[in-house]
Amino acid sequence: MLPNTQQQIQLASRPKGTPVKDDFRFADVKVEEPKEGEVLLQTVYLSVDPYMRGRMSDAKSYVEPFKLDEALHGGGVAKVVKSKSAAFNEGDYIVGMLPWQEYSVASEKAVRKIDPQVAPVSTHLGILGMPGLTAYFGLLDIGQPKENETVVVSGAAGAVGSAVGQIAKIKGARVVGIAGSDEKISYLKDELGFDEAINYKTAGDIREALEKACPDGIDVYFENVGGEIGDAAISLLNKFGRVPVCGAISAYNKQGEDTGPRVQGQLIKTSALMKGFTVGDYASRYKEAAADLGKWVSEGKLKYEETVTEGFDNILDAFLGLFEGKNMGKQLVKVAEDK
Amino acid sequence: MLPNTQQQIQLASRPKGTPVKDDFRFADVKVEEPKEGEVLLQTVYLSVDPYMRGRMSDAKSYVEPFKLDEALHGGGVAKVVKSKSAAFNEGDYIVGMLPWQEYSVASEKAVRKIDPQVAPVSTHLGILGMPGLTAYFGLLDIGQPKENETVVVSGAAGAVGSAVGQIAKIKGARVVGIAGSDEKISYLKDELGFDEAINYKTAGDIREALEKACPDGIDVYFENVGGEIGDAAISLLNKFGRVPVCGAISAYNKQGEDTGPRVQGQLIKTSALMKGFTVGDYASRYKEAAADLGKWVSEGKLKYEETVTEGFDNILDAFLGLFEGKNMGKQLVKVAEDK
Repeated sequence: MLPNTQQQIQLASRPKGTPVKDDFRFADVKVEEPKEGEVLLQTVYLSVDPYMRGRMSDAKSYVEPFKLDEALHGGGVAKVVKSKSAAFNEGDYIVGMLPWQEYSVASEKAVRKIDPQVAPVSTHLGILGMPGLTAYFGLLDIGQPKENETVVVSGAAGAVGSAVGQIAKIKGARVVGIAGSDEKISYLKDELGFDEAINYKTAGDIREALEKACPDGIDVYFENVGGEIGDAAISLLNKFGRVPVCGAISAYNKQGEDTGPRVQGQLIKTSALMKGFTVGDYASRYKEAAADLGKWVSEGKLKYEETVTEGFDNILDAFLGLFEGKNMGKQLVKVAEDK
Repeated sequence: MLPNTQQQIQLASRPKGTPVKDDFRFADVKVEEPKEGEVLLQTVYLSVDPYMRGRMSDAKSYVEPFKLDEALHGGGVAKVVKSKSAAFNEGDYIVGMLPWQEYSVASEKAVRKIDPQVAPVSTHLGILGMPGLTAYFGLLDIGQPKENETVVVSGAAGAVGSAVGQIAKIKGARVVGIAGSDEKISYLKDELGFDEAINYKTAGDIREALEKACPDGIDVYFENVGGEIGDAAISLLNKFGRVPVCGAISAYNKQGEDTGPRVQGQLIKTSALMKGFTVGDYASRYKEAAADLGKWVSEGKLKYEETVTEGFDNILDAFLGLFEGKNMGKQLVKVAEDK
């Protein structure tokens, strides 16, 4: 039996600096009935991602800000529990943008069916989903690593970063990762085959550590974090270096206060390129990427890790933990059993 | 009769901050005789350029630093006064890299003959030379302006900036220039046909002024100056904006102290691209550019201005004046009559 009411997590106030739990609210809402062309979904996994911090501000950005007093939403995997769509049957799994609640109604056009036989459904939020696609396009389209070039990735043990490093290895590059714990460093070197990995929390002068790890300089710096790590990497770029700018998590809680060395001088010296992107820029090419990613996973060349927080009530802990670097690989919240 | 000795301008010490005359030295040197395959040149025009400030430091860059106690050198136009090369006759004009002295010996392979009948010889240091080529490739290869897009250029009344704005107009863009005097602003709007021009010295808040001048945002920002003007322009970039980074004159005298807002966040929000370049990156394509530039000049679509300082002894004033924005268009030093 489906419940009549459920909890929804709303944005109660726009966070100043680092978000705190008081910025959010659990509200009781009805479980709606699907209309013609709609499905009722039971949420199985919700994705929490650093980019969501940006949507909590009302500054102009590439996605609309979350509205106050409405449900937060993000990527999720769900099971169809009632269908009024010819395209979906009860029991089907889908991936799509879901509100932060246990049940939701979606148009048949807004969600995409996934096959639980081919890969675990959670991978559609990670290595086969937005993070994998983000790594793929940012690295290959903007970074364009060539054989024996040096690729540096920050946030290297995260969902995007770990894929970036492995794809760079597949392309024959030398890969150096930057992450924030010894456990992550071991994972990068021992499990994922990174050539070097730096724990920025214990390395001392990050520029020196990076210079030592990159005796031939840096050809591609995949930017996930910004701040002083980004400054250091940019300062070590080689002639014609490339910097795909994917994220700047160190700055997300510092609106208007993120200052550092200006990059113009270094770009001129090296004829280097920096380009921001979001995965949506590449929407027309998702199929080609998904095919490559799936193949590499099945061949064992592309591994992935998930950090799964159990229970709907713990979403906020999972989200806030991102800013402390608590996750290894993709951070997920498991809301219901996936079978 | 040629003199036996002449003066040479040497770098006496590496400038700290803004260069001063004491960083330079006038030294007596011999007028050498050309050997087989060489020519003796009488300098007619010397070019002084902001990039030379970088060469006066010993920091790693895209060109070798000038050596202490040796002649400075840069682009110049000269007349052949003695030839031991089958490729050159007495009286020919050449363009090439020349030491800062009145006479010099060059290998026939190091200089290029120019035709004084086609265009004034000085244009080979300006609109038909490195500044014109720099504007051409930076704007068209990196900036890629499309019809009705908004192109902003800083240092707009300089040799590169004035060409950038006019080429953008030729390509159908709306052009906004930023410069530092009312005389330059009138020149940009009344002579060169810029749609808007901002005097950053009197405009007050530069971001506000720029926002008002660019109601549809900025699609291409051609960066010549860096600093707060660059910050403002980058903050107003549209989705998929492009920033050819050509110069950062505001920072050249501030080694290691050039800080401002980090750009990562803005690049991600807009999927914008910043790319540094130097004209040498495009050496294999000079001919195509020179043909276009020459055609536009002859059609009257591309105008140019020169600020000519008279006399070898005044080179340093001309060079130091660049950092005060004294020049309109290309800054040249006329060392000898050009007929």
